Amino acid sequence: MITKQQYEQAKQKTLEYFEKAGIILTEAEKQNIEVADFGLNELESTGLEILTYVNTDRVCAKELVLFPGQTCPEHRHPPVVGEPGKEETFRCRWGEVYLYVTGEKTPNPKGKPPKGREQWYTVWHEVILKPGDQYTLPPNTWHWFQAGKDGAIVSEFSTRSRDESDEFTDPEIARMPVVQ
Amino acid sequence: MITKQQYEQAKQKTLEYFEKAGIILTEAEKQNIEVADFGLNELESTGLEILTYVNTDRVCAKELVLFPGQTCPEHRHPPVVGEPGKEETFRCRWGEVYLYVTGEKTPNPKGKPPKGREQWYTVWHEVILKPGDQYTLPPNTWHWFQAGKDGAIVSEFSTRSRDESDEFTDPEIARMPVVQ
Repeated sequence: MITKQQYEQAKQKTLEYFEKAGIILTEAEKQNIEVADFGLNELESTGLEILTYVNTDRVCAKELVLFPGQTCPEHRHPPVVGEPGKEETFRCRWGEVYLYVTGEKTPNPKGKPPKGREQWYTVWHEVILKPGDQYTLPPNTWHWFQAGKDGAIVSEFSTRSRDESDEFTDPEIARMPVVQ
Repeated sequence: MITKQQYEQAKQKTLEYFEKAGIILTEAEKQNIEVADFGLNELESTGLEILTYVNTDRVCAKELVLFPGQTCPEHRHPPVVGEPGKEETFRCRWGEVYLYVTGEKTPNPKGKPPKGREQWYTVWHEVILKPGDQYTLPPNTWHWFQAGKDGAIVSEFSTRSRDESDEFTDPEIARMPVVQ
């Protein structure tokens, strides 16, 4: 779990990314940035900063910020309460992101799993997203993603987000709510 | 139906809006801007410019551009094939937009229906959206919206878009595909 100070620092840094990209937020939204360390307390390597615009029973839209080299760890969204799992489209807005999904392994991938956690990164089909590029992920597909050297902003358009149902490859990961 | 020249002009103008707002598109997307005149051939007053990022069975995301004073006419999204109607969240990115929905009539609304078509504008509960503001519309709600004096860019996050099922108040309106 991250400390309040770590949270505040990450939040400030996240707001600077939005400012650079010209993405305008309300004051209330700025206070509601989520900083996810996935329970590992290694935010620099494993983490994700999230602004959720809307999350209804049917539709969810978010902006995701990744700091340079930061990784959203391998996971999938299984079926829940009779619905297929979450379907996600990732659209890169700023920076560069390396997305890995189930499929043929890409030789010499650009992304590197966080040190000491390599064994929990098992899907290696690479999709490189630059600003304007996007990729739609079918439900229940294993995936992970990492920002390039300048960090990245990624818009996510999806069905309902149910973080508590996500399955992670790394057994040490817990998708915990942030301390605020 | 608009001419090829009208289409090209509106497309160029739309791309200038995206540039001003720092919204980055691929070359293919730039070629796929939709210009909707709703069959009235009065694009300056009634019309909408649309870039669809994704439209799957479950999720749709678009950017909408409105030129100064341009109006997306009153319509609703009824239930289709056993699903509730389309649910939409509008988020203003740039400029200002006046959104009108079912509900208590707002005195002295800022929007003005296109001339000669006033009778087909029947819902008058006003929601003003400035950059960072958003509004989620329940399925099957009558609504229309108009840009302020500088035009507007609005992100739309929704369930599947089925334009052919939309119901318009104005009987002269036909949601036609554009000439390209």
